[in-house]
Amino acid sequence: MRIDLQDPAGASLATVGWVGDAATGVLRMIDQTLLPNKFVEIDCADVPTVWEAIKSLRVRGAPAIGIAAAFGAVIGARTGLAEGRIGVETALQSASKFLGTSRPTAVNLFWALDRMERFGASIAPGLNPAETLDLLLAEANRIAAEDRAMCRAIGRHGAELVEPGQGILTHCNAGGLATADYGTALAVIYTAHEQGKAPRVFADETRPLLQGARLTAWELQRRGVPVTLICDSMAAQVMKEGKVGMVVVGADRIAANGDTANKIGTYGVALLAKAHGLPFYVAAPSSTFDLTLPDGSGIPIEQRDPSEITRGFGLATAPDGIDVYNPAFDVTPAELIDGIITERGVIRPVTTATIREVLST
Amino acid sequence: MRIDLQDPAGASLATVGWVGDAATGVLRMIDQTLLPNKFVEIDCADVPTVWEAIKSLRVRGAPAIGIAAAFGAVIGARTGLAEGRIGVETALQSASKFLGTSRPTAVNLFWALDRMERFGASIAPGLNPAETLDLLLAEANRIAAEDRAMCRAIGRHGAELVEPGQGILTHCNAGGLATADYGTALAVIYTAHEQGKAPRVFADETRPLLQGARLTAWELQRRGVPVTLICDSMAAQVMKEGKVGMVVVGADRIAANGDTANKIGTYGVALLAKAHGLPFYVAAPSSTFDLTLPDGSGIPIEQRDPSEITRGFGLATAPDGIDVYNPAFDVTPAELIDGIITERGVIRPVTTATIREVLST
Repeated sequence: MRIDLQDPAGASLATVGWVGDAATGVLRMIDQTLLPNKFVEIDCADVPTVWEAIKSLRVRGAPAIGIAAAFGAVIGARTGLAEGRIGVETALQSASKFLGTSRPTAVNLFWALDRMERFGASIAPGLNPAETLDLLLAEANRIAAEDRAMCRAIGRHGAELVEPGQGILTHCNAGGLATADYGTALAVIYTAHEQGKAPRVFADETRPLLQGARLTAWELQRRGVPVTLICDSMAAQVMKEGKVGMVVVGADRIAANGDTANKIGTYGVALLAKAHGLPFYVAAPSSTFDLTLPDGSGIPIEQRDPSEITRGFGLATAPDGIDVYNPAFDVTPAELIDGIITERGVIRPVTTATIREVLST
Repeated sequence: MRIDLQDPAGASLATVGWVGDAATGVLRMIDQTLLPNKFVEIDCADVPTVWEAIKSLRVRGAPAIGIAAAFGAVIGARTGLAEGRIGVETALQSASKFLGTSRPTAVNLFWALDRMERFGASIAPGLNPAETLDLLLAEANRIAAEDRAMCRAIGRHGAELVEPGQGILTHCNAGGLATADYGTALAVIYTAHEQGKAPRVFADETRPLLQGARLTAWELQRRGVPVTLICDSMAAQVMKEGKVGMVVVGADRIAANGDTANKIGTYGVALLAKAHGLPFYVAAPSSTFDLTLPDGSGIPIEQRDPSEITRGFGLATAPDGIDVYNPAFDVTPAELIDGIITERGVIRPVTTATIREVLST
């Protein structure tokens, strides 16, 4: 399905969602690799297609990956329909295991798959396969709906930190395109915008895959929030010139002590914010916390293909055969984070104790 | 003239130089906008072509810009040959004035043009126009030859700062392609390499124009120096992982107190180096100092076209109509610079007094 960006009246603009019933429906998502040049939605009707969409970043952003994986688990489960109830459960587990190999860093992926597996195991044995599948789809839809509600709550809590007319720098895309609809870091900005606080955003383009230029700039522009695009290397200068008063970013996984894995470059931005005396905030739902890890040293960091850097946009921008280092994420130590904005409130200061306290409420 | 990169035997590899005699010769340069995909040399036979080559970064790097401008002044001067000796001098001044409008930040441009004008004015009135032109070309060639010698001296002084096996991070291209042949920051690395110190380079790709990916990676690879390409946003992570032990960059203009204008992103790298306890060095010939400016606040910062960011790879990478901020340079305060490596020695600590002392020797 192709929808002309110039005439988006027919576009659903849902980052990721389910269309149809459990037995015959599909997972529909915006193919984010084609933005901002083309607005294309793709339908996934089998597990390998969902896996590829996550792996190749057609859907990306920790919460959106989790939602896509949950629907992917439903698609997997229905391949077992012919083998009865046990077949559905076995197929669910098998799909979950496979989808978990798509990307290693965002914990929401594993959280959503685990939730679907546990939910599947909890369904009363008396239900038939079709009823079981319906319940699984309802659970996946619940994950998506909860995500929407969490985003709104994050926006409300975070907007209290925004001063009127403030410049806000963000890195990568933690917006509607990274969630079911409203974003995490960008939810803070959207809410402040709706409250009339008139925030002005500086968006790092976020090499290598340019999620800031392609996605953040695009969705802020569509929602009428003033945004200025900069290269990652310009963040320090923008801070020095007093153009921004705070930084807010998303997260892919947060350890028990608050160390935060997020898109490569986030750690550098946090250091630059500290050097300029600017508050640095992380916005993320509680599903982003991985309390099994005491600190960030245990977070696996995905290494991606060198060609993302050397041939990112079709053209060769580096000599053939050059060595490349391409980590997709970095870990920002908790001591550089002034607060973590969750759907349950703002965690500050960021410590193992304050995190445990807010998450257990 | 096109030379296949796969078979560069016939390539002169001179960044910028003069071919032929004063009356009929041309300024020949590598068109750096086409690297690393194509190795093309272009010949400039009139002043507007030289101006366009500087403006559009076919030749770039503060020292190389100065040399190109000096030869451009010769090309300008010869348009006055028919009007006699006065005609040559008037044409020289007019060409100098015009070439000075090409780029505002690199002081070497103005330094070289000023030197050519003053040299022209000093030529004995008894000489005829053709003899005058020959002397002007000799002066421009002297500027190029001095640059080569300065690069070698910078390399010798700077290599003493390099420890064996050290990882060295650099930003943009301050290499052979930025000078007559050997570079400033990269001269330090080339010399250390020749001394058997086996430096390993991490090259920031340097958005928006990717001089690090296209030029630094290319020339280091050609000279057999191990180099790993990273995105600008990865510098902090590479430092955190202990992969680099020092940073060395070039400069476009250095104020009397040591504040240094260089490619956008340099200031951020300096802050990151400080946060990781790594020494940060600037390598530049003495012609880069502008002692008329007490500090960096007076250095004009060139703002460039938004399309460098939004369409840098040929493809649109940001939505139409998006606001862009695209400063080409930033200013790193002297207190973040551990030493300035000049052809006369290393200035450290970096203060108005130590700079004056080294420059006056």
